[in-house]
Amino acid sequence: MSKFNWIDGGSVTSVPGFRAAGVTAGFKRSGAPDFAMIASDVPANFAGAFTSCTFAAAPVQVCRKRVLESEYLRAAAINSGNANACTGATGIANAERTCELVAVRLGVKPEEVAVSSTGRIGVQMPMATIERGIDLAAAALSDKGGPTAAEAIMTTDTVPKSVALQLEIGGKTVTIGAMTKGAGMIDPAMTVPHATMLCYITTDVKADNALLRDMIGANVADSFNRITVDGDMSTNDTTIVMANGLSGIELKAGTPEAALFQEALLTVMQDLARRMVMDGEGATKFVTVKVVHSRSKENAKLCAEAVANSLLCKTAWFGGDPNWGRVVAALGYSGATFDPDKTDIYYDGMPVVRQGGDAGTPESALCGIVKQREFTVLVDQNEGDAEYWVWTSDISYEYVKINADYHT
Amino acid sequence: MSKFNWIDGGSVTSVPGFRAAGVTAGFKRSGAPDFAMIASDVPANFAGAFTSCTFAAAPVQVCRKRVLESEYLRAAAINSGNANACTGATGIANAERTCELVAVRLGVKPEEVAVSSTGRIGVQMPMATIERGIDLAAAALSDKGGPTAAEAIMTTDTVPKSVALQLEIGGKTVTIGAMTKGAGMIDPAMTVPHATMLCYITTDVKADNALLRDMIGANVADSFNRITVDGDMSTNDTTIVMANGLSGIELKAGTPEAALFQEALLTVMQDLARRMVMDGEGATKFVTVKVVHSRSKENAKLCAEAVANSLLCKTAWFGGDPNWGRVVAALGYSGATFDPDKTDIYYDGMPVVRQGGDAGTPESALCGIVKQREFTVLVDQNEGDAEYWVWTSDISYEYVKINADYHT
Repeated sequence: MSKFNWIDGGSVTSVPGFRAAGVTAGFKRSGAPDFAMIASDVPANFAGAFTSCTFAAAPVQVCRKRVLESEYLRAAAINSGNANACTGATGIANAERTCELVAVRLGVKPEEVAVSSTGRIGVQMPMATIERGIDLAAAALSDKGGPTAAEAIMTTDTVPKSVALQLEIGGKTVTIGAMTKGAGMIDPAMTVPHATMLCYITTDVKADNALLRDMIGANVADSFNRITVDGDMSTNDTTIVMANGLSGIELKAGTPEAALFQEALLTVMQDLARRMVMDGEGATKFVTVKVVHSRSKENAKLCAEAVANSLLCKTAWFGGDPNWGRVVAALGYSGATFDPDKTDIYYDGMPVVRQGGDAGTPESALCGIVKQREFTVLVDQNEGDAEYWVWTSDISYEYVKINADYHT
Repeated sequence: MSKFNWIDGGSVTSVPGFRAAGVTAGFKRSGAPDFAMIASDVPANFAGAFTSCTFAAAPVQVCRKRVLESEYLRAAAINSGNANACTGATGIANAERTCELVAVRLGVKPEEVAVSSTGRIGVQMPMATIERGIDLAAAALSDKGGPTAAEAIMTTDTVPKSVALQLEIGGKTVTIGAMTKGAGMIDPAMTVPHATMLCYITTDVKADNALLRDMIGANVADSFNRITVDGDMSTNDTTIVMANGLSGIELKAGTPEAALFQEALLTVMQDLARRMVMDGEGATKFVTVKVVHSRSKENAKLCAEAVANSLLCKTAWFGGDPNWGRVVAALGYSGATFDPDKTDIYYDGMPVVRQGGDAGTPESALCGIVKQREFTVLVDQNEGDAEYWVWTSDISYEYVKINADYHT
């Protein structure tokens, strides 16, 4: 038995003490669910990580304030269909007003409410729609509502993304639930917590906000920051973790229990990161780009991200073309320092490039690998001990179609 | 009358003393011309600028040696269909051998011959095909051969790119001719001379190699380094200028004559840069992204290049979608320092964003602009005096098709 147990059909409400709902408020013309609420029965410690985009959206600015000023969260309100970004002082006021309305409806304080938005940029939030969403969602809150909440935050996602897992700490069961959305505007190569996505995580451990912040910060670097779909970063990226303490387990920094919990949290976050790439806009491939034996982690990162973001590599993968020349070209312009004549490349373990030149594997064998739904491009620089990996997708006709037609 | 006169149908052989030819050697399965030669009747001063890709192709390595060690050039041999990149010591030997064969055929020295290649990476050069190309081209060299040479260096280009112009210096006529290829693997955002392209320039001024090098270096920064199609840079990028002195006009650094000539050279290089973007793989749009009143040129450059390389912006343009949210998002993640609340954006002079928010122009008016073949996205940061511009294209279904199907 693994040390972590996935809960079948798990979600943010798999964690005791959390209720959620997803409803149709009216942001989306399709009539699909577009407003989600999560509520914690008790005050929950929390931490957040946000986009580093200069044009951070109004709800991101409000959430940053929460992280700095609030001790607990009791609820979160999330809408899709309108990003409330580039909306100036009115946008901020509307995001704050959303928190107030939720607070009144749930009998909590406005500063205990987080708010997130995703959708079109530059349009003021229709507050009547927000009010309708809050009314409907507050009435629908339930300990079975996690999956519907995950549906309500989707934009170009084709599947909702909810998970939960359990682990034992100190003889007790601890649960982590999470939901995320994000299929485009996804890129990790930024000096940021993470990219185009909303992620809400619930858990019933007790941990102070500083410990949660440290865990989220470290884990984001090894999960959401490792994925790329299109090299674009959003104005609205948000990850929030809420910990209500109802398991009776309290985590202290530096203990084996905290390390185990953080590992479980990373497992959840990596699983969601993987699902986002799998559901990348128009994606037909899931490609792991891994660089090993590099002079430094920075060099390995530059190389991995150059390949993972190369339009020429991504379109070749879409075409099932093993074209390693494009991989080599991307490594070459990455800005990393390495000896090209020491570079070996493998596709799923099969030699492609040896010492900077053709390894001699027949193209038909390489074609068999890159035609798969999932494969690994391994770059061995044979120079040091550092490594880095990234998960990426291909770029298809469908990607172009989605983004030429969709008004974000 | 303009101070520069374009020559109708001009090419590298519009310049007295240069002959050229383009022939079918057999690199391309299509049977299209794939080998070009340029010859100078007299020793020509020269300078070059090359890719900064770590995996610089063998011909690039040979040309770099020419720039360091040779006083003059007498000829250049250029093939399409095989890049001679990632081909190790054999590749270098083959590139040197190509120069030797040209030298023997033309009665010049091997170190007076430049060599360039473009095409598939990682395949050893078929030297019998090279020999056939050299024989055919040497026999076909003519002072009318410029246009056929430009055809022979095409890969995914849909049109050959040849120009020539004349200007008066010191009462005499000076001519500049040039040809270029390049439609994909084009990106300026590198610490490099320029990107995925071959460009050969001929002229009949006399100028020493140092002056030519300074002029090419400065001009590349304001032409080929300003264009992007797909954000990828090639292993083979090369720009070479050859000056044979036959006009009787000698240029000295720091003189008004040298400045005028450099301006004419820039006019030629910008015209070719523009043609490359216009002919970008699958491109349906030509977009100028200009950032003005920025705190620094570095900031303006980060902003302009982020927008010009954003897949989301480029697919929106393809869709004729004025979506300024994507422009704002790209500015926001560019890494530049600026006040988002001071940012104004215009499409062809029409206000789109004012002080970081919607300027209120009806979407239908903006649609009318972005549906055009060509338009300008102007970002006014209202903070300083620095500016930067980039030329870019959209990303279409056709781009994906070309790059999913084409084996570089």
